[in-house]
Formats: sequence, C-alpha cells, structure tokens
Amino acid sequence: MVIIGEKINSTIKSVREAIETGNFQYIQELALKQCKAGADYIDVKAGMFYDDEASRLEWLVNIIQEVTNIPMSLDSPNAKALEKALKVYKNGKPIINSITAEKERYNSILPLVLEYNTSIIALCMDDNGMPETVDERLNISRRLIDSLTRKGISLNDIYIDPMVRPIGTGFDYGIIALETIRRIRADYPEIHITCGLSNISFGLPARKVFNQAFLISAMNAGLDCPILDPLDKKLMAFLFATEALLGNDEYCMNFLTKYREGAFDT
Amino acid sequence: MVIIGEKINSTIKSVREAIETGNFQYIQELALKQCKAGADYIDVKAGMFYDDEASRLEWLVNIIQEVTNIPMSLDSPNAKALEKALKVYKNGKPIINSITAEKERYNSILPLVLEYNTSIIALCMDDNGMPETVDERLNISRRLIDSLTRKGISLNDIYIDPMVRPIGTGFDYGIIALETIRRIRADYPEIHITCGLSNISFGLPARKVFNQAFLISAMNAGLDCPILDPLDKKLMAFLFATEALLGNDEYCMNFLTKYREGAFDT
Repeated sequence: MVIIGEKINSTIKSVREAIETGNFQYIQELALKQCKAGADYIDVKAGMFYDDEASRLEWLVNIIQEVTNIPMSLDSPNAKALEKALKVYKNGKPIINSITAEKERYNSILPLVLEYNTSIIALCMDDNGMPETVDERLNISRRLIDSLTRKGISLNDIYIDPMVRPIGTGFDYGIIALETIRRIRADYPEIHITCGLSNISFGLPARKVFNQAFLISAMNAGLDCPILDPLDKKLMAFLFATEALLGNDEYCMNFLTKYREGAFDT
Repeated sequence: MVIIGEKINSTIKSVREAIETGNFQYIQELALKQCKAGADYIDVKAGMFYDDEASRLEWLVNIIQEVTNIPMSLDSPNAKALEKALKVYKNGKPIINSITAEKERYNSILPLVLEYNTSIIALCMDDNGMPETVDERLNISRRLIDSLTRKGISLNDIYIDPMVRPIGTGFDYGIIALETIRRIRADYPEIHITCGLSNISFGLPARKVFNQAFLISAMNAGLDCPILDPLDKKLMAFLFATEALLGNDEYCMNFLTKYREGAFDT
C-alpha cells in the first residue's frame, strides 16, 4: 500500500492562505503531520495560483524538503510549473501527478518524466474526453502503459488512475470504476493503481460514508495507492483493517500497532 | 439484498432475560424495530436454553407473529426445536438456520426443510470439522447444493454460509472468506450467500471497523444476505452506500430515501 497525502492543495482555503502569506511553518507542519500519520508521498498542488503556479510549486517543494526527506507527488498538468519544481527537488524519487493520453499534455509532460527520472500518475483520459465504459478506460490505460514502458519507464513507476465519476450522476459509475481497477490489476500485477476517493460521492449527502465504502471496495478490486487525507483517522482505520482482511497484515500486527499508537478513530 | 436481523438471540443478555421472564412486549418491539429498520427476516434463536430450547423457540415464533407478518429465520441445529417452532409458524416462508454437511445434522434437518417447504442456510462444514481452504469450502458447498437441489429445493431457497474465521488467528482467513464468496457467486449466480459478520473480528480491538470493512468487502465479492444488527445505523449506512457503489441503487434513490428518514448514522 502506497498512501499519497492530499492535504497540501491550494484549493483548500487554509493552505491557499498559507501559500499566499508565505506561512511556511503551516505547510511544513502539514507535511510532517501527514508523514507521521502514514503518508508515503506528500501531494503538492498550487493550481489555484494560475500564472504564479510555477513559483508557488517551487516554493512548496523547497520548504517541505527543508523539514523532511519524504518524496512528493507534484500535482500539476502544467509542464512549466513541474519543471521549475523538479529543478529544485531533492527528496526521494518523485511522482508527477499527472499525465493523460491527451496528445498535448502527454507530449509536454513525458520529457520531464524521462529527464528527471520520476514515477508518473496516468489518468485514463484522452482527447475524446472522459471515457464512458470500462473498455474505453482499459484501452486508454493500455495505450498509456505501452507508450510509457516503450520509453523505458518500468511498470513499477506507473500509477494508473481509472477516473472515477460521481455515482449520483450515473448508477453504474461505481461498478465501472471497480471493474476497471479489477481488470487493470488482473492484466498488470506489478503496476500501481491510484485514485482520489471523493469524486465518487460528489453531490451526495453523507459523502464520507461513500468515500469509506469506496476505499474498501476499491482495495478489494486491486487499488494500492489511494490519494487521501491521512489525518482522517476513521479512513486510516478502514484502510488498515482492509489490509488485514486482504491478507496483507499477518495477525493484524500493523493494525494493532497503529491502534495502540492512537492512529485510528474507531 | 436480503437482510436478516440478528437481535432476537438468547445469547444477548437482555433478550435472554425477556425470554426467561416472559416479557413478550420486549421481544415484539425488538422484532418490529428490526422490520422498520429494513430487516427482511427476523432471526430467532433460543439456544441458550438447552433442554428448554424447543418451547422457548415456539414461544418466540408465536409472540412475534402476533405483531408482524415478517418471515423468520429459525436459528437452531436442533431438529426437535425447529419442528416445534415450524408447527406453529404462520408467517411467510421461513428459513431454517442452519444445515451443514455433517451427516447426522443433515439427515435430521433435511426432512423439516422438505416437509415444511422452508428455505435453508447451509454452512460450509462437514464431519471433518471447519474447512481450512477455499477449495474445501467450495467442495462442501457444491455437495450441499447438489444434494439439496436433487431433493427439489430451488437454488433461490439455498443460502450458503462460507464459515468465516477470525483474521486475528490466521492472516489469510479474510481472503479465504472473500475468495470463497467470489467463487460461489461465479458458479451460482442465483444462490444466496449469507454470513454473520462478527466472527471475522473475534479477539481484536475496534471490532466494528473490521465488521464494517468486511461487510463492504463481502458485498463486493457477492454476499447478498448479511446477518446483522439492522438497528446499527452506521452499518446500515455502509450497506446502502455499497449497494449504490455496486450499481444496485440507481441514482442512489434508496440511499437518499433512507438518509432522509434518519435511518443512517453518517
């Protein structure tokens, strides 16, 4: 299981304010808290700053690596912003979040993956927009995987995101996401499969219940890299409990250790 | 989804006391509350009374059918107790909970299933005791299904229980249960698959987290008949959210209706 902590995201009001005011302590603390809670990567996103995204992303990378060696997921579709951040980046191998099969985006981001030897999150999307069916998602993911591996990127450095749509807008969007994960996992045991959880519940009440149920369902299907809030102790309890259910935690030792440390809300 | 409400069980202290003191109102209310919360069957168990089980089970059946037409799951391995209860039973088609492939138990309970035209919960267990592997469970379930259907019992009246063991005592007991469910569902789309949830978490702290994660995981694998506490509003929220994720609740209408009725703890 690879956990990407989603909290350093400029769409979150307190984070945006901290970036605007140069409140580096707030960002550093948020990074450290997420590490402590179990994050393997810290996602870093400054997309709200538009023209200024590149320098904000560079700033975020710099202040985070002042306090921790944890690797980051650099979250932007903007090659210029990514490059500026990668130039100063010093922690362990980063992930670029994200590439797609859209021609322009693919061609602008791939060179960075190769030059800076990063891992890469690849969204199941191409120039025809968001795919409707499982098969369309599988076709896009195969094309992405084929072209990335042909460039020498190993399966282990590829994180496929099935692109989840809200079940409030289509009764089969849940099973489409789960079935896509299941089939990608069956075809590529070595690959990573990632996903933000909260799209599934967009527009519904009691969103946490759906996000939790979706995390557990998606882990059963083969998801191994959720992008989530590691400070959500309820979600983390479910994540570790499900790891035990799926046979990835012998005698529940990881769960019990975390439980004793007070990492869970049960 | 078929929900069996588990609350009228003589191992629960307040229920045992109500049975002992003849407090029929308590039992009737517990039955009605479970119906209102969404139970499709009321499980009725008086096993704690040993020699007196038969008359206690008969009494429970009588007082419950005074106030509701909901069908019951008559929960006993004791053919004499089952027969005494079935003789007075008047609600919709009952389930006998449970038969096994143990020769003596099978031969004592099957005649009741046939004579009283009941549905039947069949546990994956035989005279060799609790099976270890998925294949052993599949073999037993196939033998049970074959012999029950040969007697004219329809697949739709058979509820297979995979026999869940605590993950605290074997790291693979979760995947064994889930894989058994998945394979039975693949082989028999029409059959019901049932399961008590709480065995999985025996001996662990934070049992509810495991039970919830297991319910969601097992529904993903093909479970369609959980035996649970329908008064647990958190568990019910997960059940309905997962139904929506699995494409069984168009536009989440059932979830939203129940949510507005206050049926969930979110």
